[in-house]
Amino acid sequence: MQLFYFETLNDGDLNVTLTGDEVHHISRVLRYNLGDELLATNGRGSAFRLEIRELTKNHLTATVTGSVRIPLPGYSQTHIAFGVIKLRDRLEFAIEKVVELGTGGIHLVHMDRSERAHLNMDRMELLVTAAMKQSLQVYRPKISIYASLDAFLEQFDGTIIAAHEHATAPLNVEMKSINDTDRIGLVVGPEGGLTNRELEVLNTKQANRVSLGSTRLRAETALIALLSVVHAHRPEQHSGIPLYTQTW
Amino acid sequence: MQLFYFETLNDGDLNVTLTGDEVHHISRVLRYNLGDELLATNGRGSAFRLEIRELTKNHLTATVTGSVRIPLPGYSQTHIAFGVIKLRDRLEFAIEKVVELGTGGIHLVHMDRSERAHLNMDRMELLVTAAMKQSLQVYRPKISIYASLDAFLEQFDGTIIAAHEHATAPLNVEMKSINDTDRIGLVVGPEGGLTNRELEVLNTKQANRVSLGSTRLRAETALIALLSVVHAHRPEQHSGIPLYTQTW
Repeated sequence: MQLFYFETLNDGDLNVTLTGDEVHHISRVLRYNLGDELLATNGRGSAFRLEIRELTKNHLTATVTGSVRIPLPGYSQTHIAFGVIKLRDRLEFAIEKVVELGTGGIHLVHMDRSERAHLNMDRMELLVTAAMKQSLQVYRPKISIYASLDAFLEQFDGTIIAAHEHATAPLNVEMKSINDTDRIGLVVGPEGGLTNRELEVLNTKQANRVSLGSTRLRAETALIALLSVVHAHRPEQHSGIPLYTQTW
Repeated sequence: MQLFYFETLNDGDLNVTLTGDEVHHISRVLRYNLGDELLATNGRGSAFRLEIRELTKNHLTATVTGSVRIPLPGYSQTHIAFGVIKLRDRLEFAIEKVVELGTGGIHLVHMDRSERAHLNMDRMELLVTAAMKQSLQVYRPKISIYASLDAFLEQFDGTIIAAHEHATAPLNVEMKSINDTDRIGLVVGPEGGLTNRELEVLNTKQANRVSLGSTRLRAETALIALLSVVHAHRPEQHSGIPLYTQTW
């Protein structure tokens, strides 16, 4: 099953004309034909079945033969904030993985030990879209950028859980004190970890510091592990009918 | 903290002469000098402090100034078997991550839907070593190769937990029926997932099938998530004193 992304699709559309890179990919790379059916999302909770009526290199006209509105998944209550990672392939891998696992928002933070100043946002937005499609989700998480951990914590309303290599509380124990419906902000440092200053700032926000075990994890590993474990603790938030088993 | 790997180191050694790529790296890339101290492991549970006495491009002679034997961590009871992934960077990422997170053994399986016939074992062994050093572990997990899932299951003695996208049992619920000290074999398919034939084979072995949520995960994401959640469920297995906080 393959899912396409057209943000211009709206609930109630009957006939649509689509343009952009996705159309080019459909016509020239995947070589779809007139009459073929596509599955698409607008990234805002709706999925559409489209039957192709006209197709050129850059334009696609289609009839909407079915659509479904999918409720916001519970895991959208789980946000993840992490220090900007210096190594590009590891940063990109991190973004891909947190989107796949499911998150309400990605908060990229220029932390004290972050060494990368420039972020290619266009490229990262493409990664988010690709991972959303790959994992068959219909809500596209936003990426936000913050100049410091302080700036993220200032605006985030929810329970903070920070992974820290010198923490002693196992994550599973910590999770027992958190309500299943709480809004959570997970925090992971960049290469080199959080500074003492950042740990102080986390303290003032009553952040829960948790251990992810006795091995030293790379930044991207820590955030994938943290998000996976939190999701596993709240299975009812992640138990919606997957798009690929929906019948409509 | 940086950890080096010399498999020739043995408990009780007082003076050692070392050779190989690691020595070349120490002398020519990191430019260590006489009198400098190194931390090294033999990958069999011991860590050594070495003081450099002689150093050429390819030979290093050192005095052992301290050593510690670390008990086998509980998480070495958790093994992971996964289908050979076609895309090389994703396969390599998977290997790096499972080593970092901690495992008793990596079992690479040519599953029904695995499309990659050739595995560069030298390269994968280097990845295992690099990830062991990076994550400051002193036990080096083995990689084994199997021609089929059947072959892996035939020889593995322990409780099998397989991730499957159409399973309904949440992993956290399944974990409650597993003893903290059980030997576990985690199973994840390649791109495209497990075949019906493989699911049948798993059934004959009373494998637990678990869901990792409602999003479709790539193979490497599923195995990182599965291993992370199982570790979090058995925190006492992963609570040893990390090497980097040992004083000796």
